[in-house]
Amino acid sequence: MKKRTTIYDIANALDVTVSTVSRALSNFPGISDATKKAVIEMAAKLDYRPNKLASALKSGKTYIIGVIVPSIQAHFFASIIHSIEDELKESGYSIIVYQSSESVAKEIKGVSTLLEAQVDGIMASLALETEDVSHFKEVVNQNKPLILFDRIDDTLKVPTVTLNDFKAGFMAATHLIERGYKKIAFVTTSHKIKIFSERLEGYKQALKLHSLPVIEEDIILGGLSIKDGRFGISKLLRNENRPDAIIAGDDFTALGIVKKLKEVGLAPPIIGVMGFANEVFSPYVTPSLSTVDQHPNQMGKECAKLFLDMIRQLNPYDKINTIVIEPTIVDRQSTGTYL
Amino acid sequence: MKKRTTIYDIANALDVTVSTVSRALSNFPGISDATKKAVIEMAAKLDYRPNKLASALKSGKTYIIGVIVPSIQAHFFASIIHSIEDELKESGYSIIVYQSSESVAKEIKGVSTLLEAQVDGIMASLALETEDVSHFKEVVNQNKPLILFDRIDDTLKVPTVTLNDFKAGFMAATHLIERGYKKIAFVTTSHKIKIFSERLEGYKQALKLHSLPVIEEDIILGGLSIKDGRFGISKLLRNENRPDAIIAGDDFTALGIVKKLKEVGLAPPIIGVMGFANEVFSPYVTPSLSTVDQHPNQMGKECAKLFLDMIRQLNPYDKINTIVIEPTIVDRQSTGTYL
Repeated sequence: MKKRTTIYDIANALDVTVSTVSRALSNFPGISDATKKAVIEMAAKLDYRPNKLASALKSGKTYIIGVIVPSIQAHFFASIIHSIEDELKESGYSIIVYQSSESVAKEIKGVSTLLEAQVDGIMASLALETEDVSHFKEVVNQNKPLILFDRIDDTLKVPTVTLNDFKAGFMAATHLIERGYKKIAFVTTSHKIKIFSERLEGYKQALKLHSLPVIEEDIILGGLSIKDGRFGISKLLRNENRPDAIIAGDDFTALGIVKKLKEVGLAPPIIGVMGFANEVFSPYVTPSLSTVDQHPNQMGKECAKLFLDMIRQLNPYDKINTIVIEPTIVDRQSTGTYL
Repeated sequence: MKKRTTIYDIANALDVTVSTVSRALSNFPGISDATKKAVIEMAAKLDYRPNKLASALKSGKTYIIGVIVPSIQAHFFASIIHSIEDELKESGYSIIVYQSSESVAKEIKGVSTLLEAQVDGIMASLALETEDVSHFKEVVNQNKPLILFDRIDDTLKVPTVTLNDFKAGFMAATHLIERGYKKIAFVTTSHKIKIFSERLEGYKQALKLHSLPVIEEDIILGGLSIKDGRFGISKLLRNENRPDAIIAGDDFTALGIVKKLKEVGLAPPIIGVMGFANEVFSPYVTPSLSTVDQHPNQMGKECAKLFLDMIRQLNPYDKINTIVIEPTIVDRQSTGTYL
């Protein structure tokens, strides 16, 4: 690949300093007309194209924001990105997206890639694998806004936007209980990210409140995917005392559960199934999937607002806001009245 | 926001040239130890952090590739991105993604955003709105690889990866004809991008080959979305001689069509419905959706290979490859045998 001409090349060709070239090109006072002419002619000869980024290096502003998400294939994250973009477009910001694919190694690379691309700030939702978040500290060290959303970590002292995940777990379980289900299992992820443990806590509290026992073998900790859903429900169906309803960690997992239940003649509402995230397909599958709406549009909007607040402050971390969004239940066929 | 310290600030503070600072920091010969020490101390005092991008400005390599897609919410594009990433990760490349949201204005901004982020190359699939592609010329002018995929434009002399779209339209129509449908409509987009007109051509050829008339009022040119699907089928159902099968421009449009058909008691297979793109939800909706697999993983892989070929050449445009991928039909319930 041909090397891009830089001001260094022009300086070398003319045997002057880089600073002279830079000043000549930007019409800075104190440079003779002869020098200016020589620089401009050499720039044309070498096919030099001024680089906006070079000026960004000086001003520290590119109007680009980097967003790191586990996967753009999840409607939830894609919706958040759309909403961040929408909210920031009037302020002139562009969004570039990096996927961690749930890998901490990729997430580390994402942070450095985005910083190298000179983004003005980073918004991120952690990979399932991530336990140590120290790779994000460089963003804070560079005094650039870092905002964590949905899958956050409290050890980083940065603004966050989350769902009330305890309440989400509580509401999901309560909805099933109100529909008459009595033995509610939870197929979720084994990973340490706080939102998942909080949802589990909320679920346990709802069971306790309704005097239902919390049974460890009804809590399946694995991954989140169609395959993990099939695996989780297969395990639950082998239990002596099988559950009559399942909460899935996300809608993909719920899809796997429903598919397996259909195969064994226990399709919802015989066994109730509740998803998480209200994916685009969830109203269209059969039975349509009850789920928890995590309001990704609102989440993206709040991230954008936090970012604008942060850049308006002298120091982006002068004030650290914590935004919590309230979940709502989307009631569809998969939790249809039991009995 | 606090301004980032640059070598310009260090140069100003010490009243030396930027070039001296740069050479001192990179341990270049010919700089006195005293100067070196002064520069390093001032750099520390001003909290200067060396910028990898500044070196990228010299070497012209960031190992970042920008990908512009209409929307990451479409499984098809998200899969292509995953596959490009997968194929290039061993070569050390990271991918950043920009969405055009089908807007030519956003696409123009995307090209400049990615070039400002100093990407080593750009891969793009055009927005529906895009008719003039001159904003992509800057990528070629900078002698960086530009690869167009799926939604391409022939006027740009760059490598492309496409589906055999004529064949895709031909196969979709042929599949419906083989299933016994005789009056096949097409709900697609009015936009000028070649792939859509080629699919329409393929559809027309299939009808002709089976001595079925091509009826203009059976071709609905609108947008592609669930809403557009509902709108398109509503229009078709008002026709005196209504179609008995529909090809939709994508699976979302097909979803809207199926939903409306269910409401009026004509759910597939009464009226057959065929989608395009094999979205993640398509096997799970009821009836499950027959569709055309455009092999996004293969498409992404070919884009990655083209990119590696291009950077290995002295001039990326020495050889311009055109890769065409063969479509396949995914046969599901929505085109179940008729009669």
